[in-house]
Amino acid sequence: MKININAIGKIKDPAIQSIINEYIKRLKWRIMIHDFPPAKDNDIGVIKRKEGALLMPMRKADVFTIAMDEAGDHLSSKEFAAKISDVQLSGCSEIFFLIGGAHGHTDATLKDSNMALSLSKMTFPHQLARLLLVEQIYRAYTILLSHPYHKI
Amino acid sequence: MKININAIGKIKDPAIQSIINEYIKRLKWRIMIHDFPPAKDNDIGVIKRKEGALLMPMRKADVFTIAMDEAGDHLSSKEFAAKISDVQLSGCSEIFFLIGGAHGHTDATLKDSNMALSLSKMTFPHQLARLLLVEQIYRAYTILLSHPYHKI
Repeated sequence: MKININAIGKIKDPAIQSIINEYIKRLKWRIMIHDFPPAKDNDIGVIKRKEGALLMPMRKADVFTIAMDEAGDHLSSKEFAAKISDVQLSGCSEIFFLIGGAHGHTDATLKDSNMALSLSKMTFPHQLARLLLVEQIYRAYTILLSHPYHKI
Repeated sequence: MKININAIGKIKDPAIQSIINEYIKRLKWRIMIHDFPPAKDNDIGVIKRKEGALLMPMRKADVFTIAMDEAGDHLSSKEFAAKISDVQLSGCSEIFFLIGGAHGHTDATLKDSNMALSLSKMTFPHQLARLLLVEQIYRAYTILLSHPYHKI
């Protein structure tokens, strides 16, 4: 199982980056974070389309894409773990999580993704959202493999 | 307006503590975090009752208590800000957020609180939950005072 996080923007806070790195180190799944610089344009629609083109992976049958979106599905940590397990059992070898920029995803990105996922009804800053996603992936890993959860 | 966070357990990760401190520094509301050591006993019920006694403030008419609980209400950041504003307008001068220990709150704590609030359907580690709460309080402050939100 290979997990990819495609995100617009860099983590600038070294404190947040160090916590993300710690979770990734503990995960035995292959996880790659790819960040892309925010697109520039006067038109927000153009920015979103450019960023969507960067985020969306090549369409392949064994790839499952999850767009992180405030209007997406709300899952408990156990339901999220079960979802990852289902995706894996359905024959997908890679999951891509797509984290949009300041203006979010285009409708096309949401439509082309296999699902949209929301971490909370609350709005969190971009950098914290990325930390929460990595923590939930680590938590899903400990749930699915019945490993003890090691607090950081 | 005075905000208190009464929590069981200390923040051990200096990276998380430094981000919490940064939000608190930017808030112009008075905010105090009180942490209490986890209670010890062989009986989980006794632990929860002891911790509940530490967390719950003196009952006063101008105090509003919010128990952080996974089964609590889900609010958007704007709804959370509106709730804080309502509490303030109703004449309360202090809000207490209660963050339980590893075993959560007793039913009595939940019943005695004015509301129960959930940050997400997902389970987050205790230290991250405290960071998210402080961030949402800072965000509520920027929403209510129409200040720009300064990313960390």
